[in-house]
Order: sequence, then C-alpha cells, then structure tokens
Amino acid sequence: MNIQEKIADIQTSTNTMLCIGLDTDIAKLPEGIERTVQGVVEFNRLIIEATKDVCCSYKINFAFYEQYGTSGFDAIEKTLSYIPQQHVTIGDAKRGDIGNTSAAYANAILNEMGFDSITVSPYMGADSVEPFLTSDNKLVFLLALTSNSGSKDFQYLEIDGKPLYQHVITTSQHWKRNSELGYVIGATHPQQLKTIRDLIPTSPLLIPGVGTQGGNPQEIKEANGNGVAFVNVSRAIIYASANKDFADIARTTAEMYCKQLSL
Amino acid sequence: MNIQEKIADIQTSTNTMLCIGLDTDIAKLPEGIERTVQGVVEFNRLIIEATKDVCCSYKINFAFYEQYGTSGFDAIEKTLSYIPQQHVTIGDAKRGDIGNTSAAYANAILNEMGFDSITVSPYMGADSVEPFLTSDNKLVFLLALTSNSGSKDFQYLEIDGKPLYQHVITTSQHWKRNSELGYVIGATHPQQLKTIRDLIPTSPLLIPGVGTQGGNPQEIKEANGNGVAFVNVSRAIIYASANKDFADIARTTAEMYCKQLSL
Repeated sequence: MNIQEKIADIQTSTNTMLCIGLDTDIAKLPEGIERTVQGVVEFNRLIIEATKDVCCSYKINFAFYEQYGTSGFDAIEKTLSYIPQQHVTIGDAKRGDIGNTSAAYANAILNEMGFDSITVSPYMGADSVEPFLTSDNKLVFLLALTSNSGSKDFQYLEIDGKPLYQHVITTSQHWKRNSELGYVIGATHPQQLKTIRDLIPTSPLLIPGVGTQGGNPQEIKEANGNGVAFVNVSRAIIYASANKDFADIARTTAEMYCKQLSL
Repeated sequence: MNIQEKIADIQTSTNTMLCIGLDTDIAKLPEGIERTVQGVVEFNRLIIEATKDVCCSYKINFAFYEQYGTSGFDAIEKTLSYIPQQHVTIGDAKRGDIGNTSAAYANAILNEMGFDSITVSPYMGADSVEPFLTSDNKLVFLLALTSNSGSKDFQYLEIDGKPLYQHVITTSQHWKRNSELGYVIGATHPQQLKTIRDLIPTSPLLIPGVGTQGGNPQEIKEANGNGVAFVNVSRAIIYASANKDFADIARTTAEMYCKQLSL
C-alpha cells in the first residue's frame, strides 16, 4: 500500500486531520508518572491508547528524545511500537545533510525505525533532500513556512516578488520523485496557506501550531480547502491535565480537536 | 578558558587550521578493522592517535553515527573521549528547532556530550538558533554557504541585490550573544569567501569541502585572510588508504594538509 492510500484509509476511518505531537518533556510529566525516560515511554503509551481513535497520525519530535542520547532513541522505538499500524507516523527530525550521509540517515529513520514520513530542512538544496525520497510508501515534509516567530527572519524574504518559502515549494516541485514531497506550513500563517494551496492543491501538508501556539482550526480548514493535511496539536492535548486524570483529559481535548478538524 | 582562547592556543601550538572530519562509514573501513560500530570507534581512535599533533580540531558528522541508533550515540561519546582536551571539537549535527526543544538539545550536545561547538541550520530563524548560544566556552556554526551542489538552489537567491547567505550572516549578527556565532562557508566558493571576510573579518568560520570535494587550500587561505578558520578535510585523510597501513597514510596525508593550511 502506498502512502497516499494509507493516508486516505486512516483519514476516512477517523474523519479527521488531527495529528497528535508526542513532544514529551520529562519536566512536564503528570502526577503518577515517573520522571525518567521510562516514564516518557509509559506516558506516550497511555496517551496513544487514549487517543488513537480520534486522530489519524502521531508526530514524534526527535529533539525531545535525542537529549537523552542512547536511551532517547530507545524511547522513540518503543513509542513507535505502541502506535497502531494504520496511523501515519511522522519523524519530526528536521534533518538535511548531503549525499551518503543523508542516505544512511533516511534509511535509519524510514526503513529501520519504520516511520512513514520525516521532516527535512531545505536550506542545503536538492542533494540534501533527494536521498530521503526513496519510496512511494514514504513521505518527506520539507520545512517551508514554519510556525515559530523566527520564520519571519528568512522565510519571508522576497526574491523576484515572491517570498523564499514559495521558492522552496516551486523549486522542490522540480526535483526527482517530487510526488513523495509534502511541506510544513505553520498554522500561524493562515493567509499564506491559502496562497500555497493555489500553488500545490494536492501535496500533503503538515500544519503545526494549533493549540498552544495559537493557530485556529477553522481558519486552517478554510484556507486548506480539500488538500491532504495533517494538523498537529502537541502540548494542548498531551499536557491538558497535570493530574492523574491526564489520559482522560487528553482524550476529551483530542475529541474536540478531532471534530474541529474533520474532513 | 573561553573558546577564543582555546582556539588561539591549539592553532598556535599546531600552526594549522586543519580540522579532520570523522565521517566514518562502516562500508569504507580499511583492512584489519572489523566492519561494526565498534570497528568505527577503533578506527577513529587510531586516526586520532596518528593525527592529533598535525590538526587543531576534529569534526564529527552526526548523520554517520545516528544511523546506528543507540550504539551510534555511544560511538560518538567514545570517539570524543579519545580527542585530546586541547583540540576543538565540532558536533556537525546541522540542527534547528524551536524553543525548549533546541535548548534541551543544545544542552545534550554542548554540555552533556561536551562538544566545543555545533553546526545549526538557519532556516527557522532567531528563536531556533539562540537556544544554542548559551556560553562563551562554546561556538555555534550557522550554515551559510554550504559546500554541496544544492547550495545553489536557495543560498544564492538574491534579495535586495544580495544573496540569501549574506542575509543569513548580516541578520544573525544582530542576534543576542552573536559573539558566539561562527559560520559554515564551503571551500568550493573561494570568491564568495573573500566577500564574506569583508563582512565579518573576525568571526570563526568552518570551511568544509577541501580534499575529495575539490576545495583548494591555497585559494582558501588567501580568501580567508587573517580570520579564525577551521578548514575541514574528511575523506581525503581518513580513507587515504584502505590497507593495514591506513593510520600511517592518514598521518602523511594530514601532515601535507597541515602545512598547506598553516597560519
């Protein structure tokens, strides 16, 4: 089954674009969970168990795990094993390096760990991204217009009347195997999202920034139109409660976003 | 001792800008070294032992190690333990993420692992880089003009008459703690290096791309002038021989680059 079929299946059966971000921070683990890397894994397991029928995807932000070195990698692999096969898994690793370095890393994340997709930085250009485009079972989300405040530093710079993030999109659409490319577009830029959808009506988008960062689900849905999208909510769901009821409250909160982000 | 003093000390005592890149690939390990992650560590140990008095720095490209998951991280830590304290260590991780994610990761690489410096991607802007600027004992090398062919895709795009990589440099020079910022400038762009040195005469530069990628040491030295620089050679030194004499041949090759890259 290629990745487009997998996305269609899970989004149809859950009727939502909601992706839950497992940006799990030891310091924010709720009551009743041990504040260790093992605690992170147990927390992720309980969050996945409580929310799996109200989201279509889980995103794992590598930076939260890599800080623990070897045990962090182990925690990523264990977390992946709790995510149902039907769900789309996103390795939010923001990588980008050249040649065989990228190739080896792509193989590690997409094949050995088995993520369905990965996020990659565009700054180093084609030969830093193409090694990740290896299979029609996988997707690469290229950072285009990110949700953070620093996105204004370079991504909006105008070249020939168009901002850099649009050049990233249009240039990369000419790369080999571009059908396996998607883009990261922050929910904090709904007007730009509409323009982007005119450029690439069907490319899958990963849209972070709803919830704590302030992106509005209704605005996003309208701007996105009918394109395939994963709208990521992390902290607003996983840290909805710091008490023993955290899994129940995460579930209730995820249900709300699930409905707001229906197809 | 702050990082500027450390750099001055080692570059004075070795009289070279040569940095050796430990881009160690299992498939390219020489005769007599086991083709395992343990073999990678043993190879690195022998290369460091053979070359430590003819270089000022070692750069570890994370992508070569991360592909092995937990054992790769272990290999980085073991390799670091063989590098003499006086040498400047560069964690070539090409990271860039926002807020507390970056902060945690910066702490892991710069403090827990103990690298002197790290490479970071600029695409996400100030709030993705500033968390790495935490101490005057450390340096952050921002990717500006990379050595690969894909550098032409976005880094040369002109904004107000100047290429993107120059905007990356001039904008980041206004960020907090900018005295801890250096830049990655590929040796494959010697003319641009000269222009960059007019903009930032004293910022430390990491200059990869000499050796297999074709950068010319003499051209680089002339274009760089008197600025602090680490000129990285990886494959041309570490894979100089595939036979049992690999450490001796790496030493002889490093000696040649050491002299070509004298201060």
